[in-house]
Amino acid sequence: MKHNELKSSANGGGLLDRRLFLKRGLIFSTAAVSPDLLAKSGHTSQTLPAWMLKPGDPFSNYGQPSPHEKSTIRWIMGNRIAPGNGVSWTPLHHLEGTITPSGLHFERHHNGVPRIDPKMHSLLIHGLVDHPIKFSTESLLRYPMKSSLCFIECGGNSNAGWRKQPIQTLAGYFHGMASCSEWTGVPLNILLEEAGLKKDAGWIIAEGADAAAIHVSIPLAKARDDCILALYQNGERIRPENGYPLRLIVPGWEGVVNIKWLRRLHLTSRPVMARNETSKYTDLLPSGKARQFSFVMDAKSLITNPSFGYQMDKPGLYQISGLAWSGRGKISKVEVSADGGKSWAESELQEPVLSKCFTRFRIPWLWDGNKAVLKSRAIDETGYVQPERKELVEKRGRHGYFHYNAVVSWEISEDGSVRHVYA
Amino acid sequence: MKHNELKSSANGGGLLDRRLFLKRGLIFSTAAVSPDLLAKSGHTSQTLPAWMLKPGDPFSNYGQPSPHEKSTIRWIMGNRIAPGNGVSWTPLHHLEGTITPSGLHFERHHNGVPRIDPKMHSLLIHGLVDHPIKFSTESLLRYPMKSSLCFIECGGNSNAGWRKQPIQTLAGYFHGMASCSEWTGVPLNILLEEAGLKKDAGWIIAEGADAAAIHVSIPLAKARDDCILALYQNGERIRPENGYPLRLIVPGWEGVVNIKWLRRLHLTSRPVMARNETSKYTDLLPSGKARQFSFVMDAKSLITNPSFGYQMDKPGLYQISGLAWSGRGKISKVEVSADGGKSWAESELQEPVLSKCFTRFRIPWLWDGNKAVLKSRAIDETGYVQPERKELVEKRGRHGYFHYNAVVSWEISEDGSVRHVYA
Repeated sequence: MKHNELKSSANGGGLLDRRLFLKRGLIFSTAAVSPDLLAKSGHTSQTLPAWMLKPGDPFSNYGQPSPHEKSTIRWIMGNRIAPGNGVSWTPLHHLEGTITPSGLHFERHHNGVPRIDPKMHSLLIHGLVDHPIKFSTESLLRYPMKSSLCFIECGGNSNAGWRKQPIQTLAGYFHGMASCSEWTGVPLNILLEEAGLKKDAGWIIAEGADAAAIHVSIPLAKARDDCILALYQNGERIRPENGYPLRLIVPGWEGVVNIKWLRRLHLTSRPVMARNETSKYTDLLPSGKARQFSFVMDAKSLITNPSFGYQMDKPGLYQISGLAWSGRGKISKVEVSADGGKSWAESELQEPVLSKCFTRFRIPWLWDGNKAVLKSRAIDETGYVQPERKELVEKRGRHGYFHYNAVVSWEISEDGSVRHVYA
Repeated sequence: MKHNELKSSANGGGLLDRRLFLKRGLIFSTAAVSPDLLAKSGHTSQTLPAWMLKPGDPFSNYGQPSPHEKSTIRWIMGNRIAPGNGVSWTPLHHLEGTITPSGLHFERHHNGVPRIDPKMHSLLIHGLVDHPIKFSTESLLRYPMKSSLCFIECGGNSNAGWRKQPIQTLAGYFHGMASCSEWTGVPLNILLEEAGLKKDAGWIIAEGADAAAIHVSIPLAKARDDCILALYQNGERIRPENGYPLRLIVPGWEGVVNIKWLRRLHLTSRPVMARNETSKYTDLLPSGKARQFSFVMDAKSLITNPSFGYQMDKPGLYQISGLAWSGRGKISKVEVSADGGKSWAESELQEPVLSKCFTRFRIPWLWDGNKAVLKSRAIDETGYVQPERKELVEKRGRHGYFHYNAVVSWEISEDGSVRHVYA
């Protein structure tokens, strides 16, 4: 199929049917090889690449990325006075698929990463229970386990979106306080059953074993629903910065309640009103009231390719690719616009689409070389639609810092450069 | 529910209903905490663990496992004369869930790991095509992509099973030439369409850019079905030992055809009869005939916990956990026996169950402290049943080295130790 034929099937902005790539005869490249080039290519002659001419490197006990991928790292924003306080961002703009490698899972620490000896670590369940129980790491490893492939997103992710001017930074360093792993561990409800819940128990205060003793209040209903005491991340034991040896996983809820280095679950009748649920992770609304205990992460999406910092090649056929997620369940649809929101086309979702999990969306796009504004809009299975920025700012007012989930717009210039715009 | 009540609901070997853990009141531990112990636990007093008393470690650009998990590594079996020739094994006995971390994905190299500069690497498609095409890594990154979560298993995996005496080694160093990742890249068929296939084309010779120039023949029908030219593994760019920058992924087919460091796809009318499809990866049958081009990996399963090297604690409730997979599609059922195959119970499969992908199975087991033989048996969606060892040996004879997929048996002794048996 030639480009002029494709054009007739495109929508206003050049977006094409999402299943187009399953059809025949698409031309992306016309780089046919001449017989002359073939002879010079090292494929039919003796001119082999250097690395084919000598034995390669030996085996390794634990593999690492290629030295040529040194730019695929977490970007660190530490506090100068307290270096263990800050964040590091997942480079979403460099990743594909849905899994975040554990070494690139975002970090938010309040007082650094504790070096925990798992033999000395324990979890206490106490408070409004029939019998307090203390578990060693070893004893938890014997318990029944289940796995959940789910995202964790910091409540403060994408907060640069509240600024008056659009920030010009790589997609992962703007939205990368969100990552997705397969977490495996003990369903929390099994341990609660074992401790026996008293009638008044309504909340759980979860506390970490870091030097900030970070703690938050979680409603008991959620704890009994789908929470996991995770010991494993992406197949192996959790890494130190992600909570080794034990992390509370609260699928779909803001990152701060997914307590790392979990040491204590205190059953109470009321929330404890901790720092991170009063002065932080709350939203001061235009009415002057604060939105508090807003645990569930609303549906969000962003295009990661192309995104800020990309340089488009010549006009032609491209695949737009991005991520969507919702704390309420499955993503049901991601719509993409290439004309700043005038027209929208439905993207293809990577199977399987899982609840509270990163969902990769992709759609073919015929770029005509003119200025274009790309947007994506997630819709989840509850019918929630990711809002435009204007709509979100109107609703939440100008004091927003947390829980920013508006549509992201990337402008492609005629020269192929990509920048962040409010459009 | 108490253990004596549980016993009445168990089958012969002590296996329990697979959904039991969803029910209420299971007692795994009775380690209730006395008020005295509570006071000493550091949870209600000043005796906090050392790592809560000082700021923790700073952020990192790329995370690594805890120093306490140093035993979770690939086990290397290199050739003394040619150290780049050999294998390294995934420690399946230390892992949970279904994803293999990329750093622990098994390796099989013939002449080491080439240090490839992706800017100097290219892929040539030539032979029986209308126009040969050469792709740079960069140009492939612009192509449409799709992801496939699938296992790769070496055709020589588990070959110690052919030995007359059961090998006593950790599960991963016996069956760990199998790993599972999310692979993302360009569907091969798109590039074949672009090159244009000549009428006679029936096979593809795929060649790697290592110093062994490893190459194999693949039927065109499979190449056009679900093969991927992968650039990403578990979200990030593929690591050197797994084929950086480009690997051919052939879902469900033996590892050797998943060519790493892919440099060439040569369309031909016939297979090339390469070393790795004639003298290797073929099976000499009792009839004297060789079984060749036996690409599809038959269904297999093994219990990873408990397995050889584990030490059971006292009698009581345990969760048996393991992995199953099939090159033919989805696993439909994994049956587990705790009495050496006299009785079988159906295990719980971790959702989502995906085609040609690791599937985690789990089942509760009440160990009475007596000698027991644990087995697992995978059944896939085509109805194929994983064979007992006796059956496989009868069918394939005593010259077997490759394609061993018999039921694995672990014997639990009265002292709680676990060993490998033929039973």
